[in-house]
Amino acid sequence: MSFPDAKILDVNLANMEVKTRSLPGDVYRLYPGGSALGVYLILQEMPPGIDPLSPDNMLVFSVSPLTGLPVSGQSRVVVTTKSPLTGTIGDSQAGGFFPAALKANGWDAVVIRGRAEKPAYLYIDGDRAEVRPAGHLWGKVTGEAERLIKSENSDEKLEVAQIGPAGENLVRFACIINMNNRANGRNGTGAVMGSKNLKAVVVKKARRTDIYDKELFSQLAGSVKQRLKTNEAVSGLGENGTAGDVTFLQESGYLPTRNWTSGHFPEGADKISGLAMTETILKERDTCFACAVRCKRVVEIPGKVDPLYGGPEYETVASLGSYCGVSDLETIALANQLCNMYGLDTISCGGTISFAMECYEKGLITKEQTGGLELKFGSGEAVVKLVELIARREGFGAVLAEGSRRAAEKIGKEALDYSISVKGQELPAHMPQFKPAVGIIYAVNPFGADHQSSEHDPLLMSPEESNERKWLAQIGLWKGYEDPYVIDDEKIRFAIDSQCFFSMLDTLGLCQFVWGCSWELYGPSDIVELCKAGIGWETSLFELMRVGERRINMMRYFNAREGFTRKDDYLPDRMFDPLPDGPSKGRQMDKQQFAEALDTYYKFAGWDTETGNPTGETLRRLSLGWLLQK
Amino acid sequence: MSFPDAKILDVNLANMEVKTRSLPGDVYRLYPGGSALGVYLILQEMPPGIDPLSPDNMLVFSVSPLTGLPVSGQSRVVVTTKSPLTGTIGDSQAGGFFPAALKANGWDAVVIRGRAEKPAYLYIDGDRAEVRPAGHLWGKVTGEAERLIKSENSDEKLEVAQIGPAGENLVRFACIINMNNRANGRNGTGAVMGSKNLKAVVVKKARRTDIYDKELFSQLAGSVKQRLKTNEAVSGLGENGTAGDVTFLQESGYLPTRNWTSGHFPEGADKISGLAMTETILKERDTCFACAVRCKRVVEIPGKVDPLYGGPEYETVASLGSYCGVSDLETIALANQLCNMYGLDTISCGGTISFAMECYEKGLITKEQTGGLELKFGSGEAVVKLVELIARREGFGAVLAEGSRRAAEKIGKEALDYSISVKGQELPAHMPQFKPAVGIIYAVNPFGADHQSSEHDPLLMSPEESNERKWLAQIGLWKGYEDPYVIDDEKIRFAIDSQCFFSMLDTLGLCQFVWGCSWELYGPSDIVELCKAGIGWETSLFELMRVGERRINMMRYFNAREGFTRKDDYLPDRMFDPLPDGPSKGRQMDKQQFAEALDTYYKFAGWDTETGNPTGETLRRLSLGWLLQK
Repeated sequence: MSFPDAKILDVNLANMEVKTRSLPGDVYRLYPGGSALGVYLILQEMPPGIDPLSPDNMLVFSVSPLTGLPVSGQSRVVVTTKSPLTGTIGDSQAGGFFPAALKANGWDAVVIRGRAEKPAYLYIDGDRAEVRPAGHLWGKVTGEAERLIKSENSDEKLEVAQIGPAGENLVRFACIINMNNRANGRNGTGAVMGSKNLKAVVVKKARRTDIYDKELFSQLAGSVKQRLKTNEAVSGLGENGTAGDVTFLQESGYLPTRNWTSGHFPEGADKISGLAMTETILKERDTCFACAVRCKRVVEIPGKVDPLYGGPEYETVASLGSYCGVSDLETIALANQLCNMYGLDTISCGGTISFAMECYEKGLITKEQTGGLELKFGSGEAVVKLVELIARREGFGAVLAEGSRRAAEKIGKEALDYSISVKGQELPAHMPQFKPAVGIIYAVNPFGADHQSSEHDPLLMSPEESNERKWLAQIGLWKGYEDPYVIDDEKIRFAIDSQCFFSMLDTLGLCQFVWGCSWELYGPSDIVELCKAGIGWETSLFELMRVGERRINMMRYFNAREGFTRKDDYLPDRMFDPLPDGPSKGRQMDKQQFAEALDTYYKFAGWDTETGNPTGETLRRLSLGWLLQK
Repeated sequence: MSFPDAKILDVNLANMEVKTRSLPGDVYRLYPGGSALGVYLILQEMPPGIDPLSPDNMLVFSVSPLTGLPVSGQSRVVVTTKSPLTGTIGDSQAGGFFPAALKANGWDAVVIRGRAEKPAYLYIDGDRAEVRPAGHLWGKVTGEAERLIKSENSDEKLEVAQIGPAGENLVRFACIINMNNRANGRNGTGAVMGSKNLKAVVVKKARRTDIYDKELFSQLAGSVKQRLKTNEAVSGLGENGTAGDVTFLQESGYLPTRNWTSGHFPEGADKISGLAMTETILKERDTCFACAVRCKRVVEIPGKVDPLYGGPEYETVASLGSYCGVSDLETIALANQLCNMYGLDTISCGGTISFAMECYEKGLITKEQTGGLELKFGSGEAVVKLVELIARREGFGAVLAEGSRRAAEKIGKEALDYSISVKGQELPAHMPQFKPAVGIIYAVNPFGADHQSSEHDPLLMSPEESNERKWLAQIGLWKGYEDPYVIDDEKIRFAIDSQCFFSMLDTLGLCQFVWGCSWELYGPSDIVELCKAGIGWETSLFELMRVGERRINMMRYFNAREGFTRKDDYLPDRMFDPLPDGPSKGRQMDKQQFAEALDTYYKFAGWDTETGNPTGETLRRLSLGWLLQK
């Protein structure tokens, strides 16, 4: 086959061995990048039951054969490891320029094993890769560490993916940061990196020039610029960023507020919305390698918030804002900056803080425990203070650094109800009451609650002739709904098929804003074109969807080995209580209906309804029979 | 959605009511043509348990939204009904000019119900459709009836799909013939037509002009002409027709001989091969509407065989030739002509005659029973005579007109072993010992043994860089094999995925020579292009493969309603005996391995391993939940 081999850099920090190996194209084609490749390597080599923070854990950075091609929405890197937050397979994705540079240096994946005796960083320049001491960088915040690395290498153009102090301190939701503001955010991958004493992976700037069919490729790459001009979804995104969602969700009654006790935040929504950001602190827009969309916010508050650290996305505005009842945008921007400096996942951080606030307000935590800090909803001061304490594992921050679920176990049984998490990972800011298909995916997603692993229900309410609906129809999803709440067979199929679609996007490192259906820039068929024009891969959506399905099943298989079962696929009880106020007042999920929907999901997915795990035949059908022989 | 509505002509012969109705595009898109549409209509309206030859049976002619577009390999019509041969859903496909003309007259399907009091034919001219008397045509052979119809309408350009005397006499493997030589051959659809007293469906010549994207379309349509020039598979096909296979299969040891007691026919193969045909009786090549391939043979033997009736395909050369030990090409050509005149399926006809010959040679039938006819292997005379007797249901022909399995039940238990059939349908001339994936499909195919419902195993032996392998890889099938015999998970996936692919081709009425992978003319991705260029349907192979899967599952569901279960999915015992001679000497299928392969197939397909029927969740996953509510 003409599918390229994968070139893998394999670094054992225990003995400082740096090896190069390759995976033949006909194998790579089954797991063509991202965490599909990551979990493949892990399942091949890592035994079950290891401690995620032990040297036995593997940490895989991977891109795809498409990464670094000069087209919008392709520069994504995925980190795969056993998650210290969830205990499941961990998967975490980031954009920026690092991913394109890594691939342009010739690498499809970097595997990190073992633990360095002393802090170290990995430096990659083409075929040359070396582990260097990083004692002088340890303890430094991201901006400072990146500056030092560039300076000592006399190279301002290096790409640096690093942990901050939070990762060093093994905060279970520490992330990996590149460009000081792009995060492999979720699942605590930064803690794994910290446990290995690895401060950073540093990559020399490079560009790919190997385009398979230049003419076809530039047609495809150029078309997006044309579409951008008239695209309302993206011009809206350009104008107000993802935080533009605040307004829509507030108006619908589904802006998660005060640790999800409400979907209604009338006193704060307008103040923290994307529009408010545009009108106040927005400095400029930023983008990833070769991307014409420029969706990223950069904010500045002189003397308080440095544009170096970017700006808050919708998830961050919600988790550090409405989750905590905070309606001060400057405080959110500052907390966001701190998360990026220390290397903390903003969603889990905000979710854990709002959890603590509810515990505090309900008397489960005392002022003594918090060291005098008043953890009241609405207190921006408390949020900012807690971010610092968590990153440093100081005082009550040491408890919260474990994430809301482990913290709840320490605080007491009642507190468990206030941990709004699945598999220990805090919920992103999309309410299952409004988006039941997303709710199903929260429950079943192999690495805990995630909002970027499937399409969202309201998409099916767009006009039939819209691009988004036309494109969904390419993957067989063309039933429209008047309201988003319905759960029926077709909605569950929407959940699962769009999950496979997103899983494929994540495997190929394609940005879902650009290549998913919802932003109307490129559709599924364009991905097939891209594969052909970019690398001469003659594929189809049939093969690609199966790639996505395969990745999910490998991840579930990993989890099954670790003892996860159906009981771990749940939604927090709160989702089944009626919402108390606002436009969504009274709305709640139905427990029985949800359990039946899960049953249906498992059956459609080919998973055992008792255990929730892929059946042997499902694995075999997906060319994963080798797992059963292991 | 922009998917077109289906326009359906609905004719009730009981009261001569002719109605027009339409199926909305968003429903049609789920069942977009062929027997997918046919079985949809039947499942909607026809109760289980009816006698296939009663007026209660429905007979559906259907094409697809692509039929009649001016591109190679699209003029196919499918007839769907409950089969009088198998008792399962019946599906039978034909090429020619009739299909394109039917669609160009504006029709996507013609449904026939009831039974006319007197022989009748249906005449269609655009929106106008009428039932006309056909008493004067009854009893006429096809060539004569077609001549009369054209003459009485003063229109030489009419397209006529008709039954011959065999259909009138309810021979259970009677077919429907158009152009006097294209057959909706299998499953006895001609008998159903006969039971309705319907002699013919006659369509006025017409041409489509509604091409969605003319430029893209002509690029696509033109490319095949270019490929044809250098295409070895097709130039071989052009040179010696499908009967060219005789040589390859004889050399491999897998030319079914003397009722499948051997795969070795050294005394006859050369004499009946495609090459022999080319060198002796071949007159010219013929083609279907707009097709550049011209695969059809036309033979002539002055005073004996009329070119009007075309020429024998490989299946016919084998079934009326090597199956019966007959090595005289002229006799085969004559028997083929008789089958086309009388309207008999050549495969079941040859298979039933060779069955009778074995019974005779083994003493289970006496010369008395046959009316003095010596049914010895090798007797061309007996073959020709039996074709006539069967068509007329005269003498011993009346027994054989029931097909080999029903005949065996009359002859005696031992004879059942000699009926080389699945679900009562005689095996086509591809040996499961050589092609185990085809063998699996023989067993599970909803309408009995069929060789055109999946790709054949040896395809996986072509070079990796061949188009056929590249295209198979588009549907995720890229494992190569050094020999064809292996049965492993990937081979079973090849069976099932290629079955879904062919099922989709059959639904869209696309010729598998042109649009399948094996002839290297168009590949799967070109079908997606065709849908877009031809009718503006933006689809993907993901959607299309599911269309194919849906059709198979609907058919299996139909069968389940009729009481079919796993016990009906078998191969004749003979396949598990060692072959006695020739290059394949000693080769046999393994019973245990085959049973396990079936298990795996069911599991991969989402069918119950006990019953072999689609599970409820499989139906629901395929948007067929409505069947469960019925």
